[in-house]
Amino acid sequence: MEEYDKNCVFCNIGLHLIPTNVIYEDDDIMAFLDTNPATYGHSLIISKKHYDTFLSCPKHIMHKMFDLAQRIGQVAIKDLGAKGVNILTNCYESAGQTIRHFHIHVIPRYKAVEGFQISMNGELKDLNLPAIANQIKDELK
Amino acid sequence: MEEYDKNCVFCNIGLHLIPTNVIYEDDDIMAFLDTNPATYGHSLIISKKHYDTFLSCPKHIMHKMFDLAQRIGQVAIKDLGAKGVNILTNCYESAGQTIRHFHIHVIPRYKAVEGFQISMNGELKDLNLPAIANQIKDELK
Repeated sequence: MEEYDKNCVFCNIGLHLIPTNVIYEDDDIMAFLDTNPATYGHSLIISKKHYDTFLSCPKHIMHKMFDLAQRIGQVAIKDLGAKGVNILTNCYESAGQTIRHFHIHVIPRYKAVEGFQISMNGELKDLNLPAIANQIKDELK
Repeated sequence: MEEYDKNCVFCNIGLHLIPTNVIYEDDDIMAFLDTNPATYGHSLIISKKHYDTFLSCPKHIMHKMFDLAQRIGQVAIKDLGAKGVNILTNCYESAGQTIRHFHIHVIPRYKAVEGFQISMNGELKDLNLPAIANQIKDELK
């Protein structure tokens, strides 16, 4: 299998061929803000190499990604004012995966709600994503 | 901090003080079927020691739990006939966490759907949970 898929948007983000609002990066993984955020600070964590889903990702890469999810979630609570965080990965279209490249959603939550309900339709517009990315990036240092 | 909370239902499940449909267990973690499943095979993975959320769980325990989530998700696709799987952990009530003890949901999905929508209200009744648990347990061996 090829390590990168030239037609995959997340592979291209990882290779810096598509610009985005990066909040963390190393040789194996990258985190950036979702361009259609469900909430303020909604972040995505990807592997740089191409794996279709969580189910096919090597453990050492997957562990690094969840370590980073923990750190971003902690920043969301401590610095963004979130009251909760959802950590989520959808495997295959049937589960709501829209881009077939393993990614973890970190979704800060700000309201007291009954039960788990979330819209992934990106209703939030007009957020200053570069500013939010810089804030999270600084807190992660 | 105490390692176990005697008032916590998941601590008591981990200590075998509350019976449930176990699909995997070792010294650190346990997996069992959700008693109010969102879908067929909806499983929960817990740490045996008490951590409020994913955000406060030590990495080595958290890694074991996601390794198991990967295995259960693979079983759901291969053996239960699922077309997709959601891997989810909710941190704090604001994010839909109903039991304040770190747990990962593994939610098999069976229908082709548009976008991520899931009901966590446990509408599925009359499933034979012991039989499902035995099936998954056997496949995990």
